[in-house]
Order: sequence, then C-alpha cells, then structure tokens
Amino acid sequence: MKSPPAVLAVPPLGAAPAYRRQHRKSDGRELFLYGRSPPLAEPLPELPAEPPAAGSELRWHPLRDEWNVYAAHRQTRTHLPASDADPLAPSRPGQPATEIPFADFELAIFENRFPSFAAPTADSDAAEGASVRPARGRCEVVVYAPEQTGSLATLSADRRLLLLQAWADRYQALHAAGHAYVLPFENRGVEAGVTLPHPHGQIYAFPFVPDVQQRAVAAFAAGFDLAAAVRRSWAELGVAEAGDALAWCPPFARFPYEVWIVPRVRRAGPWEFTAAEAEGVAALLGEITRRYDRLFGRDTPYMLALHAAPAALASPFHVSAQFYPLLRAPDRVKFLAGVEQATGVFTVDVLPERAAAALRALA
Amino acid sequence: MKSPPAVLAVPPLGAAPAYRRQHRKSDGRELFLYGRSPPLAEPLPELPAEPPAAGSELRWHPLRDEWNVYAAHRQTRTHLPASDADPLAPSRPGQPATEIPFADFELAIFENRFPSFAAPTADSDAAEGASVRPARGRCEVVVYAPEQTGSLATLSADRRLLLLQAWADRYQALHAAGHAYVLPFENRGVEAGVTLPHPHGQIYAFPFVPDVQQRAVAAFAAGFDLAAAVRRSWAELGVAEAGDALAWCPPFARFPYEVWIVPRVRRAGPWEFTAAEAEGVAALLGEITRRYDRLFGRDTPYMLALHAAPAALASPFHVSAQFYPLLRAPDRVKFLAGVEQATGVFTVDVLPERAAAALRALA
Repeated sequence: MKSPPAVLAVPPLGAAPAYRRQHRKSDGRELFLYGRSPPLAEPLPELPAEPPAAGSELRWHPLRDEWNVYAAHRQTRTHLPASDADPLAPSRPGQPATEIPFADFELAIFENRFPSFAAPTADSDAAEGASVRPARGRCEVVVYAPEQTGSLATLSADRRLLLLQAWADRYQALHAAGHAYVLPFENRGVEAGVTLPHPHGQIYAFPFVPDVQQRAVAAFAAGFDLAAAVRRSWAELGVAEAGDALAWCPPFARFPYEVWIVPRVRRAGPWEFTAAEAEGVAALLGEITRRYDRLFGRDTPYMLALHAAPAALASPFHVSAQFYPLLRAPDRVKFLAGVEQATGVFTVDVLPERAAAALRALA
Repeated sequence: MKSPPAVLAVPPLGAAPAYRRQHRKSDGRELFLYGRSPPLAEPLPELPAEPPAAGSELRWHPLRDEWNVYAAHRQTRTHLPASDADPLAPSRPGQPATEIPFADFELAIFENRFPSFAAPTADSDAAEGASVRPARGRCEVVVYAPEQTGSLATLSADRRLLLLQAWADRYQALHAAGHAYVLPFENRGVEAGVTLPHPHGQIYAFPFVPDVQQRAVAAFAAGFDLAAAVRRSWAELGVAEAGDALAWCPPFARFPYEVWIVPRVRRAGPWEFTAAEAEGVAALLGEITRRYDRLFGRDTPYMLALHAAPAALASPFHVSAQFYPLLRAPDRVKFLAGVEQATGVFTVDVLPERAAAALRALA
C-alpha cells in the first residue's frame, strides 16, 4: 500500500497557511509544490529521463579577484519552445509529462535541468595554471502559476504572498543544507535573455558569498542604515507604500527607474517578515511591475533579485527586492556596454529623483 | 595673416611617423586630426553651436562601495541617424558641417557632445543624504576612418597602427592633464547598444581609478605574472601571434570567446610599446575581429577595451586589449542578466579551452 505524499505546513508569514509537497522526478531531481490547500493529487507518469547535466566548475579571475562559474553543458538548453511545448505548464493525462508531472498546481519549484551549479565531474579541462574548484551549489526554477502568460502584476495578491512564503521556505532549507548565499531572482522579457515565456523566476544557491553581497554585509556592519536613508529622502524618492513595506528609488540607482522594495524596519530576509511586511512586499512586487508596464506602455523587461543576508549572518542586514528595468524609454534599451563591463562604473541617464516622480505619478 | 595650423609629430611606436593637428570646434570642443601626412587643409565653416551638455555628477553607492556616473542630458543623444546624416563623416563644402569640419581626414578624435563626464553644474538635484561629487572627466569619440562602414578587420594595417599611435598620444595627454584613469574602448553592433554605424571607438578619462582597475593594480603588485600565465597555457589557450604580441583566451574568461591581446613582455600601456609590439597588437586587433566574424558568420557584436595602467603608477602592470563578444552562438546573444547584475558572478557557457581551439582553427 502506497504511503500518502509528505505534505508539510510552511512558515506562514501572515494569516494564510501554506503547504509544501516534496516530489522526486524520474531523473532524480527534486520538485516542490506549494499551495493554500495541501497538494495531494497523484503524479502523472514521467518518461524515463537522463540524469541532469553535470560538470560545472568555478575558476578564479586573478585580476578581478572574483570567481566565475563555467557550465558548458548549458549551451544546449531549451530556447523559446513553441507554446504547445511549455515545460512549465501542468501535465495533461495521456501526453508526455512537462517538467511538472501534475495535472494542476498552484506554485512549483524544481531543480533546473541545465544548472549553472551542477554536480561537479571528476576532472577539469582547465588549462594549466588556472585556479579551479568544483561549483557545488543548486539552481531551481520557480513557477509562479500554471497559466502560460502573466506577470507579477497580474498574479492575485494571494499568489504573490504564496510566492513570498515559498521563497522564505527555500531560504531556510538551502541555508540549512549549507549553501552560503541564496538568491531568488527573475529575468523578464527577451531583452533580459528569457528563454521561456511562462511566468517564472529562479533561485541560485551559491557555494560562496558573492562579492556584491560581501560588500553589502560590510556596509551594514559598518553602520549603513537603509531604513533611515529611505525615510530621509522619502519626499523626493518614495514611490509607493503598502502594509509595512516601502518602494523607493535609491539616490545611487545604477539602472534607469531602478526601484527597491524594503520592509520599513530592518529584517535580514523574508523569513523574518511580519504579516504586514509580507503582505506589503507582496503587494508592492505587483504594484511596481504594474507601474513599469504603464510607464513604458509595454511589458517591461527587467531583472529582479531579492538581496537578503547570507546564511547564518551575525551582523545586521536589511533585505531589499531590487528591480533593474532594462529600458530608459519605451523604445530605448539600457545597454551594459564597454564602460560598465571594463570598469564596473555605471553611467545612468535618468536621475533617480525624476524616475521616482514619474513612477509616483502613476498611482 | 593667418598662422598655419599647429601640427605636431606624435610618438611613432615604430617606423611610421604620425602627425596630430589640434582644432577648436565652434562650440568650444577640441578636435584632433591624426595622419601619416600633416593634416593641413583649411577647416570648413561650422554653424554657430550650443555649448555641449553639462551637469554630470558622481554618486556613491553605499552598499556596492563604488561610484556611479549620472548624466541625465544624455537621454536626448543622437540615436541611429539616417546614413546621409552621419555625424562622423567628413564634411562636404556647401552643406552643414558634420562633427568633423574637414573635407577629408585619416583619423579624428573629438570631445563627445553628450559626455558622461561633463562640466559639472553648480547645484545637484540629488535627494537628501546622497553622497555626491561633480563628475570631472572627459569623453572623446575616436573615428577610425572617413568611410561610413568597415571595422577593425577591414582597416588597413597601417590605419590600425595609426589608431594605436593616437591612443598612445591621448593616454599621454590625458594623464598629463591630471585624469586618473584613461579607457579607450569600442562598442560594436546593435547588441552592444551602438547608436552610430560609422566605425569608431571612444575614450573615457575618469576622475578616479575604477574598482576593476584598482583590483588589477593590486594583483600585479602582489606578483601576478600575465606573461607567464600566457606562456604556461599557450598550447591550449593560444589563438594567434603577430610581431611581439599574442592573442589568448584567458582560462578565467567571463564572456564566451573572450580574447586578450597582450605584448609578450610586460608593458604598462601602448606608450611603452616597441615597434614590434605596436605592429603586433595592431595586426591582432584586426585578426581577432576577422576571426570572430568568420566564426559567427556575421559582424560580431563585441565590447573591446584597452586595460592599461592608471596614470603615474609606480608598481608593475601588464596592459591587455580585452575583447568581450556578445554572442555565444551565431543566433544566441550572451545576456548579462539577474545573476550577473545582482551578484557580479558571471556564468560562462563556453569553456575558454574550446573557444581558443575554435578561434585557432580559423587561421
């Protein structure tokens, strides 16, 4: 007799309880279903599958003083399939299973089949003298909804809150598994290189704390007060507020119309959110996306990332969800070209004060 | 009676003498003509012009520990004009002057009308609490040839050498004028955001040494030996050689098919090149561009930058010209998306050893 699927309640971050079901795909990858009701349905049969690609490695850049990740197997990854081959859709009985072998779901997270951080191979092909180590880590795909189209702006408020709960749950599991830094992010639009139109994000778990995050840790440890910076400049740079969360254009934005969503008071990550903070951040994730799309009159390509504290950080840290839009006008892409790539210095064409005024006016 | 134009011999870097003529445009911007023969022709009349845009500033990013540049006036800059309005072409008598008010030229460099580093204005619009300073610096446009089309691959060997001489001349002048770091670079192709099709590059003179360059200074000072790294891995990563210069894929490349061109022995910048080094680097700038275009079967979009030592550096430094192509396959753009922008960590799909083998085979 089969045992029932393991379904656990996940941290609620507010009033609505959520459930997680763990499933093992036929190729060995893990898949999690998150739902407001326990996801108890039987899985559909999957075809026998090759194990996921392997062979990632880290190499040290001696002049930039940083690690790069090499994952040559990713060259063959899925690229804009026909819409009837959406690998993130629910599976249909009698047809080959998608990545999600269930006939329906609310929100799903599974291990990427083409991960940047894959199980390392025994030998490296690196030329002599290169400083190399295996790229232990984990890459996950976060499917926001079963529908093939939509965005953070069109999801229901409750689905955005469920997403925040799923992020908090994955942070806690990946930190507990020993990963040094966890980054939930979303690339949106072909200008951001998105290869699948189905609304989704990703989570990377790094085997080290990246340089950008190390700098933020040091800045907060040295006393940088993000809540005070937001309050002090709110009249000029504030965009919107909801619950106990604020949306704000930082005066030091690197992208035109860059917006940060922050809890009013300092929290290390979404796993510390109160109900009013979780509901506020979830609401603003939709609201800012909606305002971008109104501002530019189109689905705005952007990069969104959650900048939370590294695992087991003892010093203070203030989490932010950072939107980097890739447009500087409706028909003008913001390119990151020679100067940015050669020096790290960003040149910004839109002053944050004007960006905030434009986004504020769209209330 | 008019005095003859001031024409000076510039550092030859080899056998061929070169000349520079200095000219002041009607809006006050400087223009230099470089040539194998002294550029003595009379300038054509320019219309009275507005002074160039002003008002750039630097702002400190407290969490990334770096300066960004804000230049809001650049939003209105020229964007892909019709080919009969090429501002980088020679001027024609009886027609409105282009940016270069001469009927012919070999190579021209002039101050950008929409500079990222512009004369600062008196007041900043920055919100309270932002750390701001004026962005003193200089942005120049480098026009490789009078023709409206072409590339580093199609220029004559002698024109590429003249370009290297002009770069060396500008390095020396801009260092002498007090700029902290000088970056000659080229963005090629619409994927790199190029707004003018005329073959050209740019030069930025920074009021500070950017973070990437500070790290390279520290690495060389700590003993990193680029010449030895190239020699040790040459069998696997070498691409081509010419004169006393080498083209090589670094084992820690961040872009697919990234290539560095270096003099065989350590030189701080092109101003130190011997004749055989200058001719070798000039030849390889064309050769690598040619191989990219053959590899991808199209004009390859790339970012190219010369990474030389900062002004008046006392410690060792080894200059490199670094090509960052923006393709990972003929129809696949390499995007810099969420992970790169949020963490600085690059994920690379093409192993440098395979890239070198592919580029070597195109000899």
